[in-house]
Amino acid sequence: MDSDEFRKQGHALVDWIAEYWRDLETRPVTPTVRPGDIAGALPSAPPRLGEPFEHIMEDFERIIMPGMSHWNHPGWLGYFPSSSSAPAVLGDMLTTSLAAVCMSWNTSPAATELEQVVVRWMRDLLGLPTDFTGVIQDTASSSTLVAFLTARNRAGSRQADRLTAYWSEEAHASVGKAARLAGFADHRCRVIPTDDNYAMDPELLAAVVEADREQDLVPGIIVGTMGTTASTACDPLRAVGEVARKFGAWYHVDAAYGGMLAMLPEIRPLLDGVELADSMVTNPHKLLLTANNCSIYFVRDVDALTRTFSTSPDYLRAAHDGEAVNFRDWGIPLGRRFNALRLWVVLRSNGVEQLREMLRAHLKLAQELVGWVKAVPGWELMAPVPMGLVCLRHVPPELAGDEVALARHNAAILERVNATGKVFLSHAMLGERYVIRVAIGSMRTERAHVDLAWRLLSERRVNPR
Amino acid sequence: MDSDEFRKQGHALVDWIAEYWRDLETRPVTPTVRPGDIAGALPSAPPRLGEPFEHIMEDFERIIMPGMSHWNHPGWLGYFPSSSSAPAVLGDMLTTSLAAVCMSWNTSPAATELEQVVVRWMRDLLGLPTDFTGVIQDTASSSTLVAFLTARNRAGSRQADRLTAYWSEEAHASVGKAARLAGFADHRCRVIPTDDNYAMDPELLAAVVEADREQDLVPGIIVGTMGTTASTACDPLRAVGEVARKFGAWYHVDAAYGGMLAMLPEIRPLLDGVELADSMVTNPHKLLLTANNCSIYFVRDVDALTRTFSTSPDYLRAAHDGEAVNFRDWGIPLGRRFNALRLWVVLRSNGVEQLREMLRAHLKLAQELVGWVKAVPGWELMAPVPMGLVCLRHVPPELAGDEVALARHNAAILERVNATGKVFLSHAMLGERYVIRVAIGSMRTERAHVDLAWRLLSERRVNPR
Repeated sequence: MDSDEFRKQGHALVDWIAEYWRDLETRPVTPTVRPGDIAGALPSAPPRLGEPFEHIMEDFERIIMPGMSHWNHPGWLGYFPSSSSAPAVLGDMLTTSLAAVCMSWNTSPAATELEQVVVRWMRDLLGLPTDFTGVIQDTASSSTLVAFLTARNRAGSRQADRLTAYWSEEAHASVGKAARLAGFADHRCRVIPTDDNYAMDPELLAAVVEADREQDLVPGIIVGTMGTTASTACDPLRAVGEVARKFGAWYHVDAAYGGMLAMLPEIRPLLDGVELADSMVTNPHKLLLTANNCSIYFVRDVDALTRTFSTSPDYLRAAHDGEAVNFRDWGIPLGRRFNALRLWVVLRSNGVEQLREMLRAHLKLAQELVGWVKAVPGWELMAPVPMGLVCLRHVPPELAGDEVALARHNAAILERVNATGKVFLSHAMLGERYVIRVAIGSMRTERAHVDLAWRLLSERRVNPR
Repeated sequence: MDSDEFRKQGHALVDWIAEYWRDLETRPVTPTVRPGDIAGALPSAPPRLGEPFEHIMEDFERIIMPGMSHWNHPGWLGYFPSSSSAPAVLGDMLTTSLAAVCMSWNTSPAATELEQVVVRWMRDLLGLPTDFTGVIQDTASSSTLVAFLTARNRAGSRQADRLTAYWSEEAHASVGKAARLAGFADHRCRVIPTDDNYAMDPELLAAVVEADREQDLVPGIIVGTMGTTASTACDPLRAVGEVARKFGAWYHVDAAYGGMLAMLPEIRPLLDGVELADSMVTNPHKLLLTANNCSIYFVRDVDALTRTFSTSPDYLRAAHDGEAVNFRDWGIPLGRRFNALRLWVVLRSNGVEQLREMLRAHLKLAQELVGWVKAVPGWELMAPVPMGLVCLRHVPPELAGDEVALARHNAAILERVNATGKVFLSHAMLGERYVIRVAIGSMRTERAHVDLAWRLLSERRVNPR
C-alpha cells in the first residue's frame, strides 16, 4: 500500500471509527453467533495477491463485526470495561507507526523515560508511596505473576518447598493461576474466608499464617484486593499488610479495577495500608480510557524485581546500561511496545479533573441504581457498593431461601435482558448466591443506559430482538 | 475530544505518519540523548485540565522524537527488525477503537475465530504439521515461558526436582530466563556446546541427556533454535527432536526470527524436523510487517497447554464454554487484545507472493553483502549466512589472533558507523569473538542502505554527524 493509498484509507478509517463510536448504540451489544460461524465464513488460506483495503473493510463489516461483543457500547455493563477513546486511538497510531521495541533504554530512550515519568504521575495521582516505582505490563494477570515470581525468587531456592501463599476466597482467579505458574504447590496455598462484606478477615489470616509458621513453613506472599471482581469488596489492606510485615511475606495488592478510582479523595481511603505493600497492580485500561492493554505494576524493591527477571546477553549490552533502566528486566517479555505513549496522550488530552469527573459520574450512577433497587420489593442488593459495581438479584417470595432455584431464576432474567441486545450484564457467585452484576464505568455509559438496564431487569416485559 | 475534533486530529495524524515514513531517512537512526534527558524535559505531574492535541503532538515532536531509535528507518540494520506498515497501522486502529477484551470466546467471538483462522493460515504457509494449533502471544519470551511451564506441568509435581532442561549455548537469553522463571533449578539446566557453525551438536546433546537419565533425572524440555540471534544458526532440528522423542522430553523450537522465512520453499528445509516438536514460536512482528507485538505459539497437545493455564471462575463461565475455545486458557494473561486483526489485514493487503518477494529481496541483499565482504582483504565473515543476517569483522594484520584487541577495534568501528546516524548496526559475541551484526529485513531497507552500511564500515572515512 503506497503512501497516497495509506492517506486515503487512513482518513476513511478515522471517519469509520468516529461513526462506529457515534452509532454504537444502534448495534446489539453482544452478537448472536454460534461457535464456528465466523471461522466458517472465512477462507482457508490467505490470498496469493494483495487485495484493496476496501475489500478487507467490507469483510470486516460483513463477517467480523456481526461476531463482536462491543465493549465500548454504552450498554456495556457486564465485565469491567475497557474503554477506548479518541486520545487512546491517536496515541496508539503513533505507537504502531513507530513500532519501536522498547526492551532496553538504548533501543528507544524516550520510550523508557516517558514510561518512567507517566507511571510516576500515576503513582502520585493515586497517592502511593514515593518509594514505589512503576512499570507497564500488559495485564493484571501478568503483573500478579511477576509479584509471585519475585516473592519466590527473593525467598531463595532452599525455602521453595516450604513457601506458602495467601489470598481471600474473593480474590481474582489470576491470583491462584499466578501461584500455580510460579510453582507454589496447591497444598501450600491458603484461601482465606471473607466476612459478610466479602472482605478478607485479617484475624483469620493471621491465625492461618501463624499456624503455618509453627509447622516451619515460610510465608511467601499475601495478596490483598482493593475491589474484587465479583463485588468490588476491599480487603482491609492495612490489617492484612501488618500480618505480611510481621511474618516477612511479600505483600501484593491487587487493585486492578479499583486502583484508578483512588485518584478520587473520597475513594482513596479504601487503599489505606498500601503503604505496607511490596507491590501493587492497577489497570488504566479498565477505567482510564486507554483501551487494553495497559496495566501498571508498582513495586518497592526494584532490585528484588530485576534479580528475578534480568538477563544481559552480549547482544543486548549497551553503553548506558549502568545509568539507565532496561525495562526488559522488569517483567516476562523481552520485546515491549511503546506502552506509555497512549496513557500519556490520554492523561494530557483529558486532564486530571475531567477524568475525575467521569469516574465520579459513574460512581454516582451506581448509587442511583442502588436507590432504585432498594425501592422495588423483591429485588435485593447483594453486596455493598463502594465503587461502580452493583450486585443484585430478584427474589420472588416463593423461591426465598432456595439458592438453586434463585440462581436459575436470576440466570433466566440475565439471559432475557442480554438477549435484548440493548445492554450486557454479567453474573457472579457470592458464596453460594448467584448475583447479577451491573458494572458502570464504560466511557459512553450515561444515566439513560443504567436506567434502561434497570427497566429491562425489573419490568420483566421486554420484546426480544 | 469530540467526534469532529477526533476526525480532524485523526486525519492530520494519518498524514503525519505518512510523512514520518516518507522522511525517515532524513532523521538519524538512533538518538544522541543521555539517560535522563527526556525525563528531565517532562513535567512532574499531568495537567489538571485537558490540552489540545496539537500541543501534545508538539511535545511529541520536540521532546519524544529526538529520543527515539527509529526501528523503521531504512538504515535499521542492528537488531532484528520490527517493521510497521500501512496495513498494520490500519488494522491496529480498528483493534484499539474496538478495545475488545478477547479473553474468552463469548467476550468477542469473532476475535477468537479470526485468530484461529489466521494462525491456521500461518501454520500452512510455513508447512507446519496439521496437528499444530496456534495462539498469538505477545513475544517469543512469553511463548517460550509457556512451553517451559507446560513441560513442567505435564511432568507433574512429583518429578519437579528431577526435571532437566537443555538448550544450546547460542540459544536466546529468553530460554534461560524461561527456565529460571518456570522453576528449573540452575543445576538442572544444560547448555549444550555448538559446532563450528554455531549449531547444537546433537550427539553431545544425546550424551548429556543419557548421562542425566542414568542419574535418575527426568529430561523435561529441549529447545532447538532455527535462526539464532547472534548469527541465525540453525540447530539440526530433526536430530535434536529425535533425542527429545527418545527420552520423552518436551521439544520446543524457537524460530522467533527464522520461522517466517520458512514460507520460502528454499528456506523451509531449515525447519525440517519441526514435525517432531511439541511447540514452536515464531514472530510475525519481526519480518512480517505487523509491528510489535505479534508472536505465534504453535502447540500440538492443546490439552497439556490448557491444563497448565486454564482457570474457570464463576464470573467467566459462559454458555458456549464446552464448544468454543477460550484463549485465556492458552497463556499467561487473562485480558487479550484483538490480536489477529492486524495480522489478517497485513496478510490480505499484501498477499502471500508479495510478502515472499520482500523476504527474498532481503535474503538476496544479505548474499550481496557477503560477496562484498569476501572481496575486501582484512574483512572476515564470521558465520554462515543462511538468512538475512551477516556477521563480520575487520582484522588488521597486526591484531590477528588477539581477540581482546580485535573486539576493541571492531567495537570502535561499530561506534563510528552508528555515530553517523545513517545506519544502525549491532554486535554479538560468537564464542570469544566479537562480531558486527548487519541484520537486513526492515521493510524499508533497500540495496542502497546496505551498500551505505558497507561503505561506512569498510571505507573508514566518514564524517561524524
